[in-house]
Amino acid sequence: MTEASDKIGRLYGVGTGPGDPELLTLKAARALEEADVLAWFAKAGRRGNGRGIVEARIKPDIIELPLYYPVTTEIDKEEDAYKSQITAFYETSAAAIAEHLRAGRTVAVLSEGDPLFYGSYMHMHVRLAPHFPVEVIPGITAMSGCWSLAGVPIVQGDDVLTVLPGTMAEAELVRRLKDTEGAVIMKLGRNLPKVRRALAAAGRLEDAIYVERGTMPTSSSTRLADKPDDSAPYFSLILVPGWSGQP
Amino acid sequence: MTEASDKIGRLYGVGTGPGDPELLTLKAARALEEADVLAWFAKAGRRGNGRGIVEARIKPDIIELPLYYPVTTEIDKEEDAYKSQITAFYETSAAAIAEHLRAGRTVAVLSEGDPLFYGSYMHMHVRLAPHFPVEVIPGITAMSGCWSLAGVPIVQGDDVLTVLPGTMAEAELVRRLKDTEGAVIMKLGRNLPKVRRALAAAGRLEDAIYVERGTMPTSSSTRLADKPDDSAPYFSLILVPGWSGQP
Repeated sequence: MTEASDKIGRLYGVGTGPGDPELLTLKAARALEEADVLAWFAKAGRRGNGRGIVEARIKPDIIELPLYYPVTTEIDKEEDAYKSQITAFYETSAAAIAEHLRAGRTVAVLSEGDPLFYGSYMHMHVRLAPHFPVEVIPGITAMSGCWSLAGVPIVQGDDVLTVLPGTMAEAELVRRLKDTEGAVIMKLGRNLPKVRRALAAAGRLEDAIYVERGTMPTSSSTRLADKPDDSAPYFSLILVPGWSGQP
Repeated sequence: MTEASDKIGRLYGVGTGPGDPELLTLKAARALEEADVLAWFAKAGRRGNGRGIVEARIKPDIIELPLYYPVTTEIDKEEDAYKSQITAFYETSAAAIAEHLRAGRTVAVLSEGDPLFYGSYMHMHVRLAPHFPVEVIPGITAMSGCWSLAGVPIVQGDDVLTVLPGTMAEAELVRRLKDTEGAVIMKLGRNLPKVRRALAAAGRLEDAIYVERGTMPTSSSTRLADKPDDSAPYFSLILVPGWSGQP
């Protein structure tokens, strides 16, 4: 063995929570202390949202491993070119992490929110978990940060909760919003006008709460019906409480 | 004023996470340090699961306010007698908390998991938030603790996630399981045989993962198809990953 040590390193998938650095768990804080290598996903040249959240807890001597997404905005996500590029990126990223693990280093991969809930970390997990000791440290999800900030009881008792992407076709959104007690709609952006129409058609617009940048210093929430415009940043979502207030 | 101080106390709804004391957030830990009063729900004579999770962090001089559910197992939940008893219990509990707040004391109400996600705390929140300064501190949900423990990527990309109670009618479970990518089924207990049949009918049994006591020291997980019996404790749930493994 030239590079490998006798001991194989441990992989942590670390949920950073939705934005407020205080919403990190004690376990995540410990993993950041233990880690020799800190890996994080970001757009090329950016620092990554997960990394920003834990900034104050990064040890000065840690090895940073930025994982920059390939430039993909000019290619449609359904195209083979996109798929092969992103798959190659995940393969290369997992290989870079594996090299550190084989050298005996503990690697923490940051994941904004919760690692296995719509997180990029899962693409590393499926590639590395069969071969290395792995622990996933759950994080507070963005939706949970938002309903806590807005003080909206989202579901109780035997309520069904449905998490929907705003990218869904309008008729499909209407059907599903009629068929659930609580709902969370993510991926708003340019989909907000459509989502608003779907909520109205499903009779849920009056209850819907719009939350922007939940748990960040600039956060705000309002009834969607009171929001005058249709602009929605990436960090926004809609909550439809299933809770009826009883008993 | 005889009892009230000039300053009104602050109410914290504190999510304790699913069981592992290290899955408390830094913010929840701070709230426990700040609090003058610690309120928690429990069955009569018990200590409450939320309180057990934070046990090591309870200040010796804190005022404990146990909120014991009325004995209700002998009354059907749909009966008026149950509803009036539980409503009276929530009213009395909120009044006891309000008294401390008016006396200027900071009160932390513990909630296992996440306070506004199927938590008892929400019944206090709706009664007290209009009158007192309130902050809800989100916690890791039981389902998130379970999919992290089992290493199961639950949803990605544009997947829909549906959270279902095992109490639901079998045909309804089948219909909803066919209509979603990811699913979480809670409230198993005596419903497990029915849930198992519904998963099979929906073609999802092969993917389903059964997790018991997620994030507690005695936790375990297995493919539901491999679980030989139909016993399921209160702290168990089923995960159906929506994630297809691509790219």
